[in-house]
Amino acid sequence: MTVRQPGRLYGIGVGPGDPELLTLKGLRLLRAATVVAYPAPEQGDSFARTIVAAWLDRAQREIAIRFPMRPGVPSEHIYDNAARVIAAELEAGDDVALLCQGDPLFYGSFSGILMRLAGRFAIEIVPGVSSLTACPAAAAMPLVTRDEVLSVIPATLAEPDLASCLAAAEAAAITKLGRHITKVKRVLAELGRLAGAVCVEHASLPDQRVRPLTEIDEAPYFSLVLVGKTRANR
Amino acid sequence: MTVRQPGRLYGIGVGPGDPELLTLKGLRLLRAATVVAYPAPEQGDSFARTIVAAWLDRAQREIAIRFPMRPGVPSEHIYDNAARVIAAELEAGDDVALLCQGDPLFYGSFSGILMRLAGRFAIEIVPGVSSLTACPAAAAMPLVTRDEVLSVIPATLAEPDLASCLAAAEAAAITKLGRHITKVKRVLAELGRLAGAVCVEHASLPDQRVRPLTEIDEAPYFSLVLVGKTRANR
Repeated sequence: MTVRQPGRLYGIGVGPGDPELLTLKGLRLLRAATVVAYPAPEQGDSFARTIVAAWLDRAQREIAIRFPMRPGVPSEHIYDNAARVIAAELEAGDDVALLCQGDPLFYGSFSGILMRLAGRFAIEIVPGVSSLTACPAAAAMPLVTRDEVLSVIPATLAEPDLASCLAAAEAAAITKLGRHITKVKRVLAELGRLAGAVCVEHASLPDQRVRPLTEIDEAPYFSLVLVGKTRANR
Repeated sequence: MTVRQPGRLYGIGVGPGDPELLTLKGLRLLRAATVVAYPAPEQGDSFARTIVAAWLDRAQREIAIRFPMRPGVPSEHIYDNAARVIAAELEAGDDVALLCQGDPLFYGSFSGILMRLAGRFAIEIVPGVSSLTACPAAAAMPLVTRDEVLSVIPATLAEPDLASCLAAAEAAAITKLGRHITKVKRVLAELGRLAGAVCVEHASLPDQRVRPLTEIDEAPYFSLVLVGKTRANR
């Protein structure tokens, strides 16, 4: 029996949603991989897979890595399990392309896999277009220029933490909006920065929407609020 | 004489340097444009042009937009002039692809053009892979995960401002390093955060280097320092 070399893991950022925002390198490597893996919800389709669906080949083996994100399932356990599934493929000698929505390391689930497999396998990370650049492009809104400081702040923070981060921020991008929208609007209003805030939903997709945050009361989880510099701190 | 419709302006992010990190959309639009424009230093080659050189067609007209960045030339004047050159092409009915290193709106010169031409012409912005995702990919270093806050801080800030931004930052990316490296190292050392800092030079290019910041005393302008969370604020 021949001992096969272990496979290589590619963490590939597939961009924010428009299939054309995949990079040439991402396309080449995902087409060359024997195994294509992607995160998926407990039930239903993987958004990352949907983005590149047109490029997948029937000869490629696909692995949906289910992330049953719900109370009672510790995320450590989910990552341990995902890393084990991928490691088994690599040990069998197959290259694995792990698709990542947006960019692999910008708030992506790839970090949890990288932490568990680094050192054991050869890993290459292919950066992608993240929501942080896709959303300003959609809004045609320069987020930061020159010597400005940019704060990227998850809306999931507790209200006092969110308020202190935003109070200190020059320009800001608020990620993971979803059900935190009321809290975010309240904090921005208290700081006098609600008026200029813009919400971008589904950036780069056909149902992309760009609206003043003042006009909306709900938004999907994957939407981003852009907060320009106030005149006061310009 | 027929009156031609004005052309469309495309601001295209061409990524951090590896020609393969161009997006499929960026490639399609730059090949379709009659005029390809790019920022260039006062003398010498345009880095943005170099990235996509293999894709340019001799039939395309090229315009180098010179940015004579030196004391005595106000940047407002440079942008006014660049916008005028591009507007003339658009008014003549030609589509213009304006190439932007990295992403057009992430500290890019495109913002200055957008401000001057928005409303007058149809403008589409194609986001690109920025240094903010290319550098963590090169270093295989997860920069932010879960509920972490990321601060993007230009090294060009005055030392007290740099110190207060970094003191308040959870994870940080320090841009525009260059001749500011000594100041940055001093500030990080005072905050006890120098040890974990990593410098990425020429991300995605053949001469890419990833080194602990402690080991280097000079770096190019386009290098990025990644500062992970300290144990204290994890």
